[in-house]
Order: sequence, then C-alpha cells, then structure tokens
Amino acid sequence: MTDPVQTLLPVPGVRLGVAEAGIRKANRKDLVVLALDAGSHVAGVFTQNRFAAAPIQVCRTHLAATTAIRALVINTGNANAGTGASGLAHAQRMCTALAPLLGVAAGAVLPFSTGVIMEPLPIDRVEAGLPAAVADLAPGHWLRAAEGIMTTDTRPKAASRQVVIGGVPVTVTGIAKGAGMIRPNMATMLGFIATDAVVAPELLHPLLRDVADETFNRITVDGDTSTNDALILVATGQAAHPPITALDSMGALQLRAAVQAVAQELAFAIVRDGEGASKFITVRVEGGASDAECRAVGYAIAHSPLVKTAFFASDPNLGRILAAVGYAGIADLDVARVDLYLDDVHVVQGGGRHPAYQEADGQRVMQQADITIRVQLNRGEAVGSIWTCDLSLDYVRINADYRS
Amino acid sequence: MTDPVQTLLPVPGVRLGVAEAGIRKANRKDLVVLALDAGSHVAGVFTQNRFAAAPIQVCRTHLAATTAIRALVINTGNANAGTGASGLAHAQRMCTALAPLLGVAAGAVLPFSTGVIMEPLPIDRVEAGLPAAVADLAPGHWLRAAEGIMTTDTRPKAASRQVVIGGVPVTVTGIAKGAGMIRPNMATMLGFIATDAVVAPELLHPLLRDVADETFNRITVDGDTSTNDALILVATGQAAHPPITALDSMGALQLRAAVQAVAQELAFAIVRDGEGASKFITVRVEGGASDAECRAVGYAIAHSPLVKTAFFASDPNLGRILAAVGYAGIADLDVARVDLYLDDVHVVQGGGRHPAYQEADGQRVMQQADITIRVQLNRGEAVGSIWTCDLSLDYVRINADYRS
Repeated sequence: MTDPVQTLLPVPGVRLGVAEAGIRKANRKDLVVLALDAGSHVAGVFTQNRFAAAPIQVCRTHLAATTAIRALVINTGNANAGTGASGLAHAQRMCTALAPLLGVAAGAVLPFSTGVIMEPLPIDRVEAGLPAAVADLAPGHWLRAAEGIMTTDTRPKAASRQVVIGGVPVTVTGIAKGAGMIRPNMATMLGFIATDAVVAPELLHPLLRDVADETFNRITVDGDTSTNDALILVATGQAAHPPITALDSMGALQLRAAVQAVAQELAFAIVRDGEGASKFITVRVEGGASDAECRAVGYAIAHSPLVKTAFFASDPNLGRILAAVGYAGIADLDVARVDLYLDDVHVVQGGGRHPAYQEADGQRVMQQADITIRVQLNRGEAVGSIWTCDLSLDYVRINADYRS
Repeated sequence: MTDPVQTLLPVPGVRLGVAEAGIRKANRKDLVVLALDAGSHVAGVFTQNRFAAAPIQVCRTHLAATTAIRALVINTGNANAGTGASGLAHAQRMCTALAPLLGVAAGAVLPFSTGVIMEPLPIDRVEAGLPAAVADLAPGHWLRAAEGIMTTDTRPKAASRQVVIGGVPVTVTGIAKGAGMIRPNMATMLGFIATDAVVAPELLHPLLRDVADETFNRITVDGDTSTNDALILVATGQAAHPPITALDSMGALQLRAAVQAVAQELAFAIVRDGEGASKFITVRVEGGASDAECRAVGYAIAHSPLVKTAFFASDPNLGRILAAVGYAGIADLDVARVDLYLDDVHVVQGGGRHPAYQEADGQRVMQQADITIRVQLNRGEAVGSIWTCDLSLDYVRINADYRS
C-alpha cells in the first residue's frame, strides 16, 4: 500500500532551491525555497505556543485568505520570534521579496524561520540570498532542501512513499527538521510534505490535522513546545487519478495512509536525532479510561528527567517509571492494578515488582538502542503511544553551547 | 521577629539518634530516630503521587488515628516504594520494632524511607540498627540527624528560629533532605520541623499545609514528584506560653512566621543543593489573572530544559523564557503585553526585545549564582514565585550513575 522508497521521489509540480545566505554562519545552506505550480493547494498546522513567531502569524493570515499557495520560503539561523512589530515586517518582506522573482502574489508565499529566538532577523541577507535560491530550483532537490533547513540536526530528514490511487501512482515526499525544543503541539518544528494527488482543497486541512495528531503530536525530546512549529501539506493536483472529494473515500484513505507513513517516518527521525539522543523510546500506555489519560501518562514518563537519564545510562532503575505514572494526574488511579513491561520483560505486576523479575533481564533490554516501555493501567480500553529519546550529557552540552 | 540563628537550637521534648545500619552502603549514617516526649502532637503533609510509598501509607493511617505521635523513624538507601504488600509489612515492622525500645505504642510511630524505588527494603538491617539509633538519642543531635537523612544531597540541611510568644521564647528547628526527584506536591522529599510551642492539635495541620504551600510546594529541581515526599511538624508543647488555640491569634501568626522561615530556608537549601545545581533561580511571575496561572507560567519556565541549560551555560538565550511563557497554557495570553526582566535588566517590552537591551547586560546577570527571572503578564493582580536551579552536566551524571 505505502511501501517505503529508498530514494526521494520528486513530486510533479514542486521545485526546490537552496542558497547560502550567511544568516547566522557563513558557508552554510540556510535559505530554502519551494516553488509550487499553479493549481497547488496548501494546508498547515502551527504551534499552539502563544509566542508564535512572526512568520507563523503571516502563514496564518495568508492561508486564511487562500489555499492556492505558490511558494514556501524557509530560513534557518534565526527564528524571528519574540521580535515584535519589526519581526512581523521582516516576515512579510520575505514574501514580498520572493514573489516577483517567481511571478506570484506576495499573499501566495508562506514564510518560515527557525533558529535563535528574540534576535532581529537579518532580513537584508535573506533578501540578498533569494535570487540564488530561485536559480537553484529543481524538482530533484528534496535532499538539498532537507539539508538546508537543518539547525542542530545532525542528519537531514526526508521520506517518500508511493501509492496507487484509481490506478494511478501518486507520490508523497516530505522533509522535516528539529532536534531540540521538541514537544510539538498541533504541529512540529518544521515539516513540509508534498503530493501530486488531486484533492479538494477543503479536505487538506482536516487530513493534515489527523495525521499530525497521530505522528508529530506524539513525539517529544525535551517537552519544550517551540514558537515556530509548522507542518505543511502541499497537493499539486498533477496526478491523473480522479479527484478526491470526500474524506471517507477510498482515495482519501489511501492518500492519508501514505501521508501518515511519511509523517511518521519524519517524526521518528526527529526523535532519533533528538539533541544528544542515544536511544529511541516508545512509551505505550494501555488499558486507560481515555485517550487523554494514556497521553498524560505517556508524556509524564517521556518528560521525566530521571527516567530519561536512567535510559541514557542503560540502568534499569525502573521505579522512576512508576513514580512518573503516579504523578501523571490520574486522581483515582489504582496502583495495585498497574503492570509494567520493558519490551518482553514483565517488570511490575499489580503495582509491585514482579516476583520473577530479574534485574539482568531489565539490563539486557536497557542495552538496546530501541526500547518499548509498556504500561498497562487495567482501567479501560484506551491505548496510546508517545515516542521520545533519552536525556544525555550531550543534550546539556548542545544546549549550553547552542549559541556559541 | 524570626531571626535566623547560626546554631541549631534543641527543641525541648525532642531527642534524635542516628545509626549506621548498612541498608545500602556500609559506613554511612542511614537510620535516624526522633523520640518525642509525651504530650507532643504531630501533623504531616504527604506526596500526591499515586504510587505513594509504603511508609507514607502507614503514616497516613497512624495520623488518622491520633496526632499524639511519640517517634519518627527514617531510613535512607531504599524508598520502600513500588514494593506492594510486602513493602507495607516492612513499613509496619519499622514501627513495631522501634515501639518497645522506646516504650510507646507502634501506632504512635511514623516511618519514613528514601532512596531507590522498587527494591525490597532490607528490613532485617533496619531492625538490627534500631538499638544503636536509640542509644544515640540526644537533644543536641539535629545536625547528625540532618546528615543521617541525606541521599544524593551534598550538604546537610537544617535551620532554626526563635520567636517570643506571650513573653516566652519558643524554638522552631527543622531538617530536610532532597536533591533530585524534586517537585513537591503538597510536601517535600523529607522535612521534619519541631517546635516546643503549645498549640491545639487540630491547628497543626492547617498551619503546616499553609506553610508547605508557600515554601516546599514552590520549589522544583527536575519536575519529578517523588513517591516519598513528606513534611512533618512536631509540637512538643513544653514551652511556657499560653496555649495557641486559634489560627488567627497573634501567637499563631508568630509561630507560623517562624515555621515558615524555617521551612523556606530548608526548601531553598534543597534547591541550592539540587543535583548538579550551579545556580539558584527565582522565577517571579507578576500581573497574572490568578495565582494558578502565575504558578503555571513559573513552572513552565522552571521546568524547561532549554531555559535550565542556558542558565547553566550563563548564556542569556532569553528567548527560551518567552517560548516557555507561550506554552504555559494561558489560552488568551496577549503576548504584546508581556515584559521580562533578568534581575534589574529590562529584556523584553511588549512581547519583543526591549530597544535598550544589550546582550552584555544579560550576560552580566547570567554570571551570578543567584538570579531572578521576573515576568510581567500585565493582565491582573496575582503574583507568584517558583524557585529552581539550572540543569547541568552533573545532573545527568548523577542520575545516570545513581545506583552504581
């Protein structure tokens, strides 16, 4: 259905260009343009942080007026957040400067920024770099673009899927960045996914929101929700299949599965590349009374510095997980019904250490690079997963040094 | 009114004894007994963690039956939490073993444990160590007792105040421990405060709860609420002043001020000795619509790993503070009214960088060991403070190595 593909497939109707604009550091790809053919439609979900960055505010305004977006422009090195009225003017200038180079309206451009917060965006350098980015535009530049949006990321993040809809192959390709300040809330750091599927514009946003809720909204590195989170879905409409006009149609379900597969791969890549991360941890909570309480327990575990440092040390100090379950906010939790598994190892039964549990078994699992913590609350039918990483010495080093 | 005293004043009616019971490590003070004269009354506030440790459950049961407690017994090295029915039996055995040595009822003993979670308490060693602790009982052993309850603490924590009530000097002396798993919720890790004041027993609990809410419940090191938090207030009633029989009486207010001063000093000492802490940070939130929202903003800042690592690095990367304010959960926050100060430096005005702000000024404050972050929300009259520390490489080292 949605086979992973090893190479990044171009999406008909999308061209990408990258430049070195010297925004924060010299000799570094830091400016990316995505040019979308006429006929494209775009949906976005954005950070719920009240200190939403200036470009996020411009995105919201432009998308409220039209989904017929023609270009995306992204700078790294500076988040243009906490920058007040001048920041807003700078975000608008990113659009007005790019528009004539592509022959589109400024209102059809969406701007994105990521980097340090509360410093003025060097807008002159952004503007000066745009012609080079436009000159670089090509359908095959997805990996270059993934590199161009990196900040503290150590690896570019990109994924492709192909799905056959109505007998016609349809492509979904996406890129993302993010390694710290990661607890997306309705969106991720920056993620851009494009498809050539033909979709009624009004379906794009609900489809994207559903996908975000199952993928980017379930990962966390450090619990810090960024000011600049944005996840964008582009549909260029250039594939030859019959148009998708209802969310419950077979075509919509096929497309959604492909978009979700790309989004999940990108979201997992963000966790695996979490600042200083050495382990990928799935926290699966079962038997909850509601999805919300499964999430609350999952996040309590995933955010606990004590749990995260124990995983960094490969130390099965698993009582720390119980402590996090206990303070996750379920007022009527009966701890005598709680079970805990580390992968296949049954650690806690009925709220206490399982009689057969041997520390050597916990130790064995803790050595792995991929670990699943499974909590069984035994109070309902709800299930939910959160994905996170450990807290390492390198996380502190990276964030103590970020600006230097 | 409540002058700090440099030495720890004995509290008439309280004797303390310490032993090396070898509970986890040899040659380490790890067992403490407080013997209280007849006539003493005790109040306690305990963790809200649903995985409350076995001794916490026994404390609640005993205190529900009587406030006329005659002894406290505390072991370190093992938290006796997540230990199920056998853990509960062990906590009860701490009481039944100590009671005959002091000639009191087992129900008049309160047990406390702190250390590793989810490992069986070596109750035989606890029982074997009790006679030595009882033999050591003396009114002057407060500092020894403060040392005896330390786990990852690097310093003993103790404080004394004297206050004159009805013409009679009254003493308040307390000890506490705690350095990690610190986000007390209605209590702290372990804190024991005693006074010789004469107080109607039913006033002790409301007085203690008020004090805890203003002190221990406003500190955080890592956001992890322990399974074993407990704060205990003992009143031996041996001072000669007229009894305190109403919370709004002058005597009660004087006593409360003294207890609060001791509690605050102990709570601050916990933050200063936070695992790996190199800075003491006061987060003061002003202009909130409610106390709850001031606390929520304060905790969002105090728990942000990005804020905490920036302070560790003395890097005025202050946009991270704005991001935390933005995700603190105030849905209708108008960020254009938010101001931010770092000590005396006005950093953010109206949601953006203050025009006169110079990074050198932020840098100067960041070098200090004591720093106040002041956020002005400009949407109401409420004010609240949270106290925390930075997140350092040593925090990760300590918690990655804790059990080894």
